Amino acid sequence: MKLDETHDPALRSWVESANAPDCAFPIQNLPFGIFRGKGRKELPRGGVAIGDQILDLAALGVRTGPTLNALAATGRPALRRLRRELSRALREKSAQRKRLARHLVSMRQAELLLPVAIGDYSDFYTGIHHATNIGRILRPDNPLLANYKWVPIGYHGRASSIIVSGTPIRRPLGQARLPDAPAPLYAPSMRLDYEAELGFITGTGNRLGRPIPIGEAFAHVFGAVLLNDWSARDIQAWEYQPLGPFLAKSFATTISPWIVTMDALEPYRCSAFARAADDPRPLPYLDNDDDQREGGFAIELEMHVRTARMKQPARLSRGNFRDSYWTVAQIIAHQTSNGCNLQPGDLLASGTISGTGADSLGSLMELTLAGKNRLSLPGGETRAFLEDGDEVIERGRCVREGFATIGFGEAAGRILPALAQ
Amino acid sequence: MKLDETHDPALRSWVESANAPDCAFPIQNLPFGIFRGKGRKELPRGGVAIGDQILDLAALGVRTGPTLNALAATGRPALRRLRRELSRALREKSAQRKRLARHLVSMRQAELLLPVAIGDYSDFYTGIHHATNIGRILRPDNPLLANYKWVPIGYHGRASSIIVSGTPIRRPLGQARLPDAPAPLYAPSMRLDYEAELGFITGTGNRLGRPIPIGEAFAHVFGAVLLNDWSARDIQAWEYQPLGPFLAKSFATTISPWIVTMDALEPYRCSAFARAADDPRPLPYLDNDDDQREGGFAIELEMHVRTARMKQPARLSRGNFRDSYWTVAQIIAHQTSNGCNLQPGDLLASGTISGTGADSLGSLMELTLAGKNRLSLPGGETRAFLEDGDEVIERGRCVREGFATIGFGEAAGRILPALAQ
Repeated sequence: MKLDETHDPALRSWVESANAPDCAFPIQNLPFGIFRGKGRKELPRGGVAIGDQILDLAALGVRTGPTLNALAATGRPALRRLRRELSRALREKSAQRKRLARHLVSMRQAELLLPVAIGDYSDFYTGIHHATNIGRILRPDNPLLANYKWVPIGYHGRASSIIVSGTPIRRPLGQARLPDAPAPLYAPSMRLDYEAELGFITGTGNRLGRPIPIGEAFAHVFGAVLLNDWSARDIQAWEYQPLGPFLAKSFATTISPWIVTMDALEPYRCSAFARAADDPRPLPYLDNDDDQREGGFAIELEMHVRTARMKQPARLSRGNFRDSYWTVAQIIAHQTSNGCNLQPGDLLASGTISGTGADSLGSLMELTLAGKNRLSLPGGETRAFLEDGDEVIERGRCVREGFATIGFGEAAGRILPALAQ
Repeated sequence: MKLDETHDPALRSWVESANAPDCAFPIQNLPFGIFRGKGRKELPRGGVAIGDQILDLAALGVRTGPTLNALAATGRPALRRLRRELSRALREKSAQRKRLARHLVSMRQAELLLPVAIGDYSDFYTGIHHATNIGRILRPDNPLLANYKWVPIGYHGRASSIIVSGTPIRRPLGQARLPDAPAPLYAPSMRLDYEAELGFITGTGNRLGRPIPIGEAFAHVFGAVLLNDWSARDIQAWEYQPLGPFLAKSFATTISPWIVTMDALEPYRCSAFARAADDPRPLPYLDNDDDQREGGFAIELEMHVRTARMKQPARLSRGNFRDSYWTVAQIIAHQTSNGCNLQPGDLLASGTISGTGADSLGSLMELTLAGKNRLSLPGGETRAFLEDGDEVIERGRCVREGFATIGFGEAAGRILPALAQ
């Protein structure tokens, strides 16, 4: 781990709300986002979250423009310097307090926007328990395919429909074929689901034709966000052979607005331990001792639902990104292993992260066994899949003894009824 | 068909080279591209091809900037007006000849660049003969899956690695498992292939959550380009289950530099005739009488290869986009049917177009039956798949009795050896 003064758990900020014990954005976090004043016609600009406030990056002379792509492209060393500068400026007794206080905007007064213009979006399938659970439903005799432990399986997703937390989700129309029906129908999806994922946003890219070696992969990652890969299971089942999921996913993907930097995540690295002792050793381009030792990240991912009748959200699951079979470095190395080029602001998602316990399953597909076992909610409602008016809220945080707890905030969205045809 | 004065086959241009009988860019074509002076450090800008010349669009007061995205977003009516203006200005006896002649740049003196910044790229699978041929290799008992005649099958491709004609193709490294091998290898692809496709570039987009009705689909298309979907068959076979092709495709996709507008293609519309009489009727959101009557386009697509030892390229196939099972309007309507949003400059590709004849197969996979029957080339060489030094050239043109023949130019690329590991 590359720890420095910014990770010291004893640090406190002159922004008082950042020192509350359950605050997602203490001074040890310092995630970047894009914001503007709520209801104002002003240009969006970059900021950093501190407590319940946003520090306008312009206060430090950093003019991001309306996306963080250019900031991401400055690279890890420059970002680490900026982080240290921010940490010092926001610490208790900072001489800059008075000057910077004028550049704080309350989160309640701010609108948070998509933090980067996403060039390409890839969605991986690193959650081995999820892959096994889904495989068991589709192919009971052969849940995990022969390539799974060799290839970090992934597919390209739709970038245009990636939206920021809070944007409503219109229930998609689509083709599906009911069991034993002679023909498909085009109708509102009846099996609307979520998927608990983490997304990684790239910083510096690579030239087309030049793979990124696994040992250099982290230098190309800017940070992480929560990601809910909304999924229409009935559309997916009918369309996905032979070329993979398409319209079952492309109607919406929600991400959280704050990019938690790789530097902020440094204390929460852990061994990549989902790989069993008798699993095949990764091929050399995916194999790296450092990565196996600390390529994982202990990040808790929770999914909550709040139906139209509920006052408080209910937690449906808590998983942990430690349960990922492939590391972030491995998916970067794999994605570029054929020469494919990354650009600043690309998004690589983990795929659904589920654990082995019944309370750690990251999709309704798994929680209800494809809708067979309805889920009971507080207040007496039940769900097989999502209904109109349901709000799904993904939350994430990093907890480690001896370090501050840092949060990701939320990736939330409420289901709107399908359009009339 | 919406024909107007610009389609009159008798029109001639004062740019003499445009009047040659085999010219791809007569005055009836007028495709748009992005260019700059060869070897110059000047900013790229928009131009229109006429004969062997490029007319700088700035001559008509159109400042595109370095991509055509903004021009594409102006919409079909504005583009039709610009086309008429260009046609009049470039016609024999135009009063503007003298003024415009100063804004001509010879194609030999120009570097052609990617014409649009591509937001999202989807690749469809509309070539039913191709789908059947490939299916027969993979699943001899069940070549065409049950969803094929209902769903315009497609998947998301990689936008960052789309390159313009002439850019060399680095043979990709990747994971593949040889038949009966206990483990896969990471090595240069040994089954490198091409795919003859057509790509459609979108103009005006749609709002997220609002499908484009099939009757309005054409209003959202800017124009068409040739597209070679380079494919590594060994990587593809090992990785594609369960989420579809990924690294087998994302190392490179070549497009031609000139966007032939939908208005230029108007005379070559034809019935969407690949659908057999006893095939299921498309679901209502994909069904439209006008589209069935003239939703197809008679566009010839040829693939040529020139090995390092050959002086002249040899033609390997000639297919026709008429053999597409799904129309352009149907793939637009399908892509947006779940609310997915298109943005100006998105790319939707046809998938490989093959006909029924042995000389109309749009990939080596089909021509050599997955490498089993080596292909004989003039000069005595043979090929199962592409070798280093081979150049693949896709050409396209529209031919119709009573109208001018218009061309697409080329989408070409030469294979470079894989990087040393």
